Amino acid sequence: MGGSDVVLLDFWPSMFGMRVRIALAEKGIEYEYKEQDLLNKSPMLIEMNPVYNKIPVLVHNGKPINESCIIVQYIEDVWNDKPPLMPSDPYVRAQARFWADYVDKKGEEQEKAKEEFIEILKVLEGQIGEKPYFMGETFGYADIALVTFYSWFYTYETLGNFSIEKECPKLIAWAKRCMQRESVSKTLPDSKKVYEFCLQMKSKLGL
Amino acid sequence: MGGSDVVLLDFWPSMFGMRVRIALAEKGIEYEYKEQDLLNKSPMLIEMNPVYNKIPVLVHNGKPINESCIIVQYIEDVWNDKPPLMPSDPYVRAQARFWADYVDKKGEEQEKAKEEFIEILKVLEGQIGEKPYFMGETFGYADIALVTFYSWFYTYETLGNFSIEKECPKLIAWAKRCMQRESVSKTLPDSKKVYEFCLQMKSKLGL
Repeated sequence: MGGSDVVLLDFWPSMFGMRVRIALAEKGIEYEYKEQDLLNKSPMLIEMNPVYNKIPVLVHNGKPINESCIIVQYIEDVWNDKPPLMPSDPYVRAQARFWADYVDKKGEEQEKAKEEFIEILKVLEGQIGEKPYFMGETFGYADIALVTFYSWFYTYETLGNFSIEKECPKLIAWAKRCMQRESVSKTLPDSKKVYEFCLQMKSKLGL
Repeated sequence: MGGSDVVLLDFWPSMFGMRVRIALAEKGIEYEYKEQDLLNKSPMLIEMNPVYNKIPVLVHNGKPINESCIIVQYIEDVWNDKPPLMPSDPYVRAQARFWADYVDKKGEEQEKAKEEFIEILKVLEGQIGEKPYFMGETFGYADIALVTFYSWFYTYETLGNFSIEKECPKLIAWAKRCMQRESVSKTLPDSKKVYEFCLQMKSKLGL
């Protein structure tokens, strides 16, 4: 199934792009990575995501798929001969979708107060609880949706002057557990590199 | 599959609740409908949707599922012996998810200018094009996500003083086509009733 021609249009610090990269790595899919300049969008990006002009875009056999969580579900559907990223039980699958959607919704409401940000992380930590992964024993869809934010935690903490580990120790333990997977550790960029990127962007934008 | 005990916590004018009602009707599932008072939320609603305290909630054999699009996918997954709401081809399925997500995202950014609202409807109309339904010949997931807004069009038009049919004739033709399905026509409330509900709410809130 699947196979053939897979291209990813992406931007290295993107939490959303990282989700797709983790899913591709989990499924062992070879692909061509095309870094995008978001300040100067390529005609290919505009053609492949005419609605939002955003990364990530997965181009499979010439056909584009947009939106990170939809791409991950597409990867799951097409490469269904590989270990699943979605729970097999419909109820647990709905829960995985719920939490991935929660991460998405809360991630999109930007510029939250620090307190509110910590509240959100505590809700997520409460859901993970004592389990190794979001939905239980197996790494999958909801873990992928959230773990990519981990690469930005150092930046949030440094700019916001607080410690996520102090507030949410189990969440950090979960993130470190995820980082033991090669698909995650090889995908997530170095936290310091993300932080430097943010400082550069802030300086470029005069903030 | 599925069967047994299905309860829906809902509120009659809700576009999101209607999605679930259409999906249940399409699959021919019997359920108990429990109208909720959103100004005075029931302990059951709070217990069954602790994260958002929102309708709709589908309670299946005592276990709650939240978020309309996730509930529709759950219904699809559990009652998979009935005609599918999701396209069978993974690429078309990703497209269906993309457009349902687009409707959700654009629906949540409230209080849009009239011009922007029409632009969004034109994007959706362009996607439907000359096809009978969103994804082609078959009514399904993306149609369900959008068609429930049709019951609010009269309210938008009357309060905003414009005609959606004039701007988007094909969209209205598609909506009327959907209304020929019993699952839709029996679910969507009368447009005038929605309008009166809005006037009452505005008056109650002193707007």
